[in-house]
Amino acid sequence: MLVLGVDPGLTRCGIGVVEGTPGRASLIEAGVVRTDASMAPERRLLMIEREIEAWILRHNPDVVAVERVFAQHNVMTVIGTAHATGVAMLVAARHGLSVYQHTPTEVKAAITGSGRADKQQVGTMVCRILGLDKAPKPADAADAVALAICHSWRGVADQRLAQAATVGGGRKVRL
Amino acid sequence: MLVLGVDPGLTRCGIGVVEGTPGRASLIEAGVVRTDASMAPERRLLMIEREIEAWILRHNPDVVAVERVFAQHNVMTVIGTAHATGVAMLVAARHGLSVYQHTPTEVKAAITGSGRADKQQVGTMVCRILGLDKAPKPADAADAVALAICHSWRGVADQRLAQAATVGGGRKVRL
Repeated sequence: MLVLGVDPGLTRCGIGVVEGTPGRASLIEAGVVRTDASMAPERRLLMIEREIEAWILRHNPDVVAVERVFAQHNVMTVIGTAHATGVAMLVAARHGLSVYQHTPTEVKAAITGSGRADKQQVGTMVCRILGLDKAPKPADAADAVALAICHSWRGVADQRLAQAATVGGGRKVRL
Repeated sequence: MLVLGVDPGLTRCGIGVVEGTPGRASLIEAGVVRTDASMAPERRLLMIEREIEAWILRHNPDVVAVERVFAQHNVMTVIGTAHATGVAMLVAARHGLSVYQHTPTEVKAAITGSGRADKQQVGTMVCRILGLDKAPKPADAADAVALAICHSWRGVADQRLAQAATVGGGRKVRL
């Protein structure tokens, strides 16, 4: 499964593309979209849209995974991040791609086995999984890659559950 | 000044177009985009994008005003609303339009003179200003219209302040 992961943000929006099956993953590309804080927010969103669009056209992913935001930090930062998230979701939908969201805790648990792992531990495991000497930089790119790995591992299991729910005569559940 | 106001939301996104100068305003069109809660959120954002795009092409506004969201209510609702806000801002930027945000308190104060006015008082004043017998329906459309009136009144004053700041040799301030 080819997953495009997005760690949304106005100042730095991480993007990572990973080819993965449960227990295995390889890195295709990782990077970051930077926009200048002195620009009007709507112009920054337009730059983010164009970059995500370019990545989708370049890699033709099967699915888009986006980090799920919770309002646990500064409210205004969270809202700016949510604007960028909305743009990422929109671009995916325009290309007929489904969007799945995972929380940072789910990503850590998928990569390290613990939802409370620290950044370094996640970085070490991402390198080990992908066979890299160093984690992708900057941190936002690494976070997007970790998210894409998480989805390629969890997503398959989630889709099997959804199929089982459908086959079993139940209403199809969006997981 | 022709203002397109957006009261963002996933279930109902209000849109109102108003031609206004301080103290006067006339209604051009008001309506609402509804999307089905059973659809995937990214598909709902795509529908909202297409509708706002159609309104902008139909009316060719000078500026877009969007209600500023604060995380004062249910966090997950606020985040869904912020996704829709991001999409509205993006569509405006794509058409070269600036986006201005006003809080509900600013809208109430501009329309009624009090930031603590209730919905009915705002509705009464919107009707009086626009010369209507009844407020636009549903409530989201009326909110978008009130926001557009607010911007057409406040926006001109804000722009004069920005010009004065520039003329005065100061750095141009984004208000």
